[in-house]
Amino acid sequence: MDATGSEVLARAQALARHSDSPDHYTRTLFTPAHRAAADEIARWMRDAGMSVRVDAIGNVIGRYDAASPAARTLLMGSHFDSVRNGGKYDGVLGILLPIACVAELHARGERLAVALEIAAFSDEEGARFQTSFLSSRALIGRFDASVLDRRDADGVTLAQAMGEAGLDPHRVADARIDPACLAAYVEVHIEQGPVLLDANLALGVVTSIAGGTRHAVRVHGEAGHAGTVPMARRHDALAAAAEMVLAVEKRCAAAPGLVGTVGMLKVRDGTGNVIPGEVEFSVDIRAPEDATREAAQRDTFAAFDAIASRRGVRVERTKTHEVRAVPCAAWLQDALAASVERAGVSARRLASGAGHDAMILAEVTDVGMLFVRCGAGGVSHNPAETVTAADVQVAASALLDFMRGFGAAG
Amino acid sequence: MDATGSEVLARAQALARHSDSPDHYTRTLFTPAHRAAADEIARWMRDAGMSVRVDAIGNVIGRYDAASPAARTLLMGSHFDSVRNGGKYDGVLGILLPIACVAELHARGERLAVALEIAAFSDEEGARFQTSFLSSRALIGRFDASVLDRRDADGVTLAQAMGEAGLDPHRVADARIDPACLAAYVEVHIEQGPVLLDANLALGVVTSIAGGTRHAVRVHGEAGHAGTVPMARRHDALAAAAEMVLAVEKRCAAAPGLVGTVGMLKVRDGTGNVIPGEVEFSVDIRAPEDATREAAQRDTFAAFDAIASRRGVRVERTKTHEVRAVPCAAWLQDALAASVERAGVSARRLASGAGHDAMILAEVTDVGMLFVRCGAGGVSHNPAETVTAADVQVAASALLDFMRGFGAAG
Repeated sequence: MDATGSEVLARAQALARHSDSPDHYTRTLFTPAHRAAADEIARWMRDAGMSVRVDAIGNVIGRYDAASPAARTLLMGSHFDSVRNGGKYDGVLGILLPIACVAELHARGERLAVALEIAAFSDEEGARFQTSFLSSRALIGRFDASVLDRRDADGVTLAQAMGEAGLDPHRVADARIDPACLAAYVEVHIEQGPVLLDANLALGVVTSIAGGTRHAVRVHGEAGHAGTVPMARRHDALAAAAEMVLAVEKRCAAAPGLVGTVGMLKVRDGTGNVIPGEVEFSVDIRAPEDATREAAQRDTFAAFDAIASRRGVRVERTKTHEVRAVPCAAWLQDALAASVERAGVSARRLASGAGHDAMILAEVTDVGMLFVRCGAGGVSHNPAETVTAADVQVAASALLDFMRGFGAAG
Repeated sequence: MDATGSEVLARAQALARHSDSPDHYTRTLFTPAHRAAADEIARWMRDAGMSVRVDAIGNVIGRYDAASPAARTLLMGSHFDSVRNGGKYDGVLGILLPIACVAELHARGERLAVALEIAAFSDEEGARFQTSFLSSRALIGRFDASVLDRRDADGVTLAQAMGEAGLDPHRVADARIDPACLAAYVEVHIEQGPVLLDANLALGVVTSIAGGTRHAVRVHGEAGHAGTVPMARRHDALAAAAEMVLAVEKRCAAAPGLVGTVGMLKVRDGTGNVIPGEVEFSVDIRAPEDATREAAQRDTFAAFDAIASRRGVRVERTKTHEVRAVPCAAWLQDALAASVERAGVSARRLASGAGHDAMILAEVTDVGMLFVRCGAGGVSHNPAETVTAADVQVAASALLDFMRGFGAAG
């Protein structure tokens, strides 16, 4: 399988041509481009010797039977939807790489002690209906039917879009698989960050998927004339918020894996000659361990209160989002690390700062993740996202090795 | 003139009913409300024994002759337009107070050695056509004809609005007065800040009108995924901007009268889960002396450069506005201070952080300004703006005393 790296990249690039927009790569749930991509993935699965079904939420699932019909299933996969103007490898790599490995087994007429399934999830980013992990949730039987009424930017509901895609919105429950059949779930994904790039390593083994909390913070100060209120007399909401932004940054630099971001900040009625009276901003804090995140959050908010009190402004915050950290199973980490080492790469372990379908599958089975180095400084969710053929090649070797070892142990 | 304070307040409140909006006080150039206010001011001037003319830019100018026809003119006045949802005393007080003083002279049959003119300027805030000091500029013959093509929010040009108000846009030059006739210009204005309130003084004598510079600053960092880029690896444009906001605040607190404000700040494409890649903000720096402002600006921008270099971001700035400080004439300050003391108020001298028509008149004559204490914490450009009848009463005493003294000296 010497050409696997370049073949996988060529397929990812070909798949990116199925885009909702002619100008950039955007593929969202149940659009014509999305259905065309599903068809192409199904064809590649069949070419790899797999039987293919499309489930009730539009997931494309390929199966390569084990040597014994009684064997359990190693599920692999990732998503084939994208963010708006996204990168061509995000998600897709975790579908195309295992397909390439199965194709190799098929070419050699090799069956493993475990059945292999590859799930191409129809919706993880959720850009069209503002959903998250829609399809992997359906797969484990935790689909939230209320999202069927959500509308896209054109007013089309998810239920209508399903109908247009030939799916019955009343039968989403049929997508559920029996978790008792699963031996594990393993997801390959582009790192989406610069850690492997900086470490000069092609691959990395994920230790856990970070938990995260997002808060909306509002600072109420006192608006005033920029020329007439002496500095000592001000209660400037933006100056207070600026101190808070730096408090987030400082506290979240204090532990490895911990990150804190103020991504949105708005000055209400902000104009050049008025002292800001009200500012709102977001605080996103993530860490591989919940205790680390919770401690950082506590300290950060205590710092906010101290800043507000010293400056005579009022601060209020609302939690808008929280997910707990999901650890990857130690035995899967070890097995993946051994395969990475056999592929000639020192097995660096690292946390995933981004969320993945593996977080959902972890509710019903053990999960593991393999990261592939992200080029271009580690940018993702961006057309500049890139991986090299050489790295994909070594990832394919490691993954195939892992499958064979898994089969032997199972 | 025992009831002057409450009469002036009653007139200011009556005048505020001439508003472009039924919901709040907003009066902009050449609207029906603006014309109604001009008519009412003209009537009050005539009632005070003045001859009244409306000049080519819509200024209402009342004249009360001196004892001798050869006497020069003491020009007083301020503006009768407002900001959107403004305060009822801003500008208007500097028209109504001198009218009340002239009414008192008229009632006593008293003529001074100097002629008195009161200019009610039609446009100083410039909210409708985004102009500034439009009417006082016309009065000194420095009208910029290019603004005639500016459009308001409904697409009406200033030239069209003038036509609707019965004025000929080709004859604005006729508004020019001969500066040789002027002995001085004196403007009474609400302080628009908290200095007199904090000092527990009804009146203050302005030493100079602050100069100011405004810059648009843009910080270019590196956008990234809020979960996957380690803190040490970031070039967060917002964190850099936050440090710069605090640098402005710190440097501008270092000298009395100096003020610095970041009133506008925007994160480009800001969302909670993305590290900010680009931020723009405004920096407004003002000081009563140009050297103080220039030094603060130099130090602030040096701090910006140091922050940008340490953080690996790029900063660029563009000057969008600059006015030099305008000193009030020492002899007018002294004369006003003496009148303030004779009215029983300790004569505090203070700089004006806000701009006033006096800045424009200073190009052709000596100027002086008298501030009246601003209530409600010093807020202005806001419906909460307030003055007390007692303070206005004492201001009227001081102003009348000043006029009589001026007449005697002239």
